Amino acid sequence: MKHPLLLCAALLALSAAAPAPTPALAPVEVIAAAPAADWAPIAPSDLLVMDLAPDAKGAARRVVIQLLPAPFSQGWIGNIRALAAAKWWDGTSVNRVQDGYVVQWGDPDGEDKAKDKPLPAGLKVVPQTEYEITDKSAVERVQEAYRSLRISRSVEGLADILAHPPKTLADMRRTPIGDLDPYGPLSSFWGGWPVATDLDTHTWPIHCYGTVGVGRDYPPDTGSGAELYTVIGQAPRQLDRNIAVVGRVIEGMEHLSSLPRGTGDIGFYKTAEERTTIRQIRIGTDVPDLPRYQYLSTESASFARYADARANRRDAFYIRPAGGVDICNVPVPVRRARWAPPKTSGQSLIDLIHSA
Amino acid sequence: MKHPLLLCAALLALSAAAPAPTPALAPVEVIAAAPAADWAPIAPSDLLVMDLAPDAKGAARRVVIQLLPAPFSQGWIGNIRALAAAKWWDGTSVNRVQDGYVVQWGDPDGEDKAKDKPLPAGLKVVPQTEYEITDKSAVERVQEAYRSLRISRSVEGLADILAHPPKTLADMRRTPIGDLDPYGPLSSFWGGWPVATDLDTHTWPIHCYGTVGVGRDYPPDTGSGAELYTVIGQAPRQLDRNIAVVGRVIEGMEHLSSLPRGTGDIGFYKTAEERTTIRQIRIGTDVPDLPRYQYLSTESASFARYADARANRRDAFYIRPAGGVDICNVPVPVRRARWAPPKTSGQSLIDLIHSA
Repeated sequence: MKHPLLLCAALLALSAAAPAPTPALAPVEVIAAAPAADWAPIAPSDLLVMDLAPDAKGAARRVVIQLLPAPFSQGWIGNIRALAAAKWWDGTSVNRVQDGYVVQWGDPDGEDKAKDKPLPAGLKVVPQTEYEITDKSAVERVQEAYRSLRISRSVEGLADILAHPPKTLADMRRTPIGDLDPYGPLSSFWGGWPVATDLDTHTWPIHCYGTVGVGRDYPPDTGSGAELYTVIGQAPRQLDRNIAVVGRVIEGMEHLSSLPRGTGDIGFYKTAEERTTIRQIRIGTDVPDLPRYQYLSTESASFARYADARANRRDAFYIRPAGGVDICNVPVPVRRARWAPPKTSGQSLIDLIHSA
Repeated sequence: MKHPLLLCAALLALSAAAPAPTPALAPVEVIAAAPAADWAPIAPSDLLVMDLAPDAKGAARRVVIQLLPAPFSQGWIGNIRALAAAKWWDGTSVNRVQDGYVVQWGDPDGEDKAKDKPLPAGLKVVPQTEYEITDKSAVERVQEAYRSLRISRSVEGLADILAHPPKTLADMRRTPIGDLDPYGPLSSFWGGWPVATDLDTHTWPIHCYGTVGVGRDYPPDTGSGAELYTVIGQAPRQLDRNIAVVGRVIEGMEHLSSLPRGTGDIGFYKTAEERTTIRQIRIGTDVPDLPRYQYLSTESASFARYADARANRRDAFYIRPAGGVDICNVPVPVRRARWAPPKTSGQSLIDLIHSA
C-alpha cells in the first residue's frame, strides 16, 4: 500500500509543505505550535535514569523516568532516591514482562527471602494512607483544573453539572473528560500529572500507559520502592489507591515495552538468562550527559487545546470526532529542551503522541 | 524480593491448595470456576491464522485472530477471506510498530503505488456506513446486555438512571460499566464482543488492546482489508467509527507486541531488514493443526461475575475496590478447548487475564 494507516495524517501533521485541508489541528500540530512559555522544565533531580545492558546489537538502552513531585508519593520517592544513591539497583535486572500489563524490575531472587539483596539502611516504611492525599485544598485544586480545561463539548464544567443534573444519558456527556471516569467521580491534570479525586477530601495519582509504580507484597505491606514496574498495556486503573504511583517513563519506553514476554506465571522469566541486566540507576543530577526535558504545562492554553484535539479529532484522517476522551488517552507531552544535544536513539513519549 | 508484585496473588488464584483468605474471588478464579456450558465455541472458519517467520532462536511465531461475526464488519471480512484464500499475504511483512499504539502488516512497498502488490479480483469497496450498524433492534440488544450485566454497584441499570437522573456526580457512578464511557453514551458486550451504541439507531464495535482493524488512506477510502493492524497500547477509542474493526488477537499477541519499535515516522521500519516476514495467513479451516478455541459467553452468569470482579477487586492483594471499570479492562476470556492438543508455546489472552 502506498499510504498505509495514518502515515499520511502524520506526515501532514509534520510537514508545513503539505496541502492544508479544511480541518482543525491534530494533537501533534497543537504541540508543535505551543509557545516556549507553555513548556515547563523538569528538574534533573526529579529524574530517575535507568541504563539497561546494551541490546543484542550492542545499542545502548536508557530509560528516563520522571518522578512525581510533592505532594504525591513522597515516602516512596525518598526511598527511591536513597536506593539510587546507594547504587542498589546496579547489577539487578528486569524480571517480569507480562503482556498487556507490566514490566517489573529489581532484585531477581525468587523464592528464598534469605537470599534477598540487603536494602540500604534508613528506608522508610510508608503507610497505606500515602496512596492518597487527604487534603480538601488538593481536591479543590483538581476541581479547578477540571473546570479550566476547555474542551469543546464541555458546556459549563463541573459546577454546571452539579447545578443542572443531567436528565438523559446524552446530557451526561456534556463534559467529555474526567467526570465520566469510571474509576472516580472526577479526574483532571494537576502540575503535569493525571490525578483523580473523590470530591470529598481525597486525591490520588492514576495509572496510565508508562506509569511507574512500586511493587509490594500483600497488604499492609506497601513496598519499599526497590521493586518497580511500568505499565505496558491498557491502564490498570484498578491499581489506583492500592499501590504506589511514583512516576512515568518519559523516554526509552520501547526498551521496556518490547522486551520478550516472560513465559512463567504472570510473566516472570523462568531462567536468569532471560532477564535483562540493569547496569545502573541514578538520579538525573548524577548523570553527566543527560539532556534537559520539558513537559507541556497542564495549566497552559496549549494543553487545553491539545486535550480538546485528543477528544475531538477533526484533522483530515477522521470522519467523526469522538466528543470525549479517556484521561489516559491524553498523555502529557514531554520533549527534550531545544538546546539539548540532538537525540541519537530511542523513542520518546513525543513519538507516542504522534498517534493519529 | 521473595514475593514480588502480584506473584502471590496469582499463585493463590491458581492453586486450590493455598490457604483461603476471606476475600471474594479474583477474576482469574471466576474464569476457572466457570462451567463448561458458559463457554462458547469459536468456529475455525472465524479464525485468521498468521504465521510469522521464526524468531532469532528459530521458535515458531503464530498469531491467532478471531474475526467479528455478523452483523459486524461483513464487507471487510469478506475481503479478508478472499485475501487469505488467494494467499495474498504470504511473503508480505510487519512494517510498522509504534510504541503504545499499533502494529501494522501488509504490503511493505512504501512510496510508489505502481509497485503495490496487486490485489485479488473481486474485493468489495466497503462504504463508510459499515463502520456502524444502523438498526434499532441492535441498539436494544446492547441496552439489554447492559442491563443484564449485574455489577455490584449497579443498582438498577440504565432504565433506573433514565427514570431517576443523578443529582450528584457520586450518583452518576451507580452503574460502573458502560454508561460512564466517554466515547459513547453506553457500551456493553454483545455475542462476545465489546460494542457501543448512541442509544438512537447506531451500534459499533470498539477498539481495545488486541483489537484488529483495517488500515486505510484518507476518507472516503475505507481500506480493502489487505492492510491490518492490532492495538498494542491504551485503547485508541478515537478510531471507533472512523476505521473498520474486524477482530481481535486471541493467541500469540506477544509475537506482535514485543517486536522492535520502528524508528521511522509513526513507527514504520526504515529498512526492509527490520521488517518481520509473514510466512502465511490462512482462515482457520485451512490450518490442519489448529486447536479449538472457546470464549466465555458474555451472556453467561460467569461473565457477569467476572466483569463484577474486574470492577470490584476484593481478592487478597487489594485494599480498595475501584467500584467501576473501563470496558477495555474487561477483556473477554478465551481459552483452548480442553480436548485440544496441549499448548506448547506462546501466551494466550487467558494469560493476560491473570493480571492481579
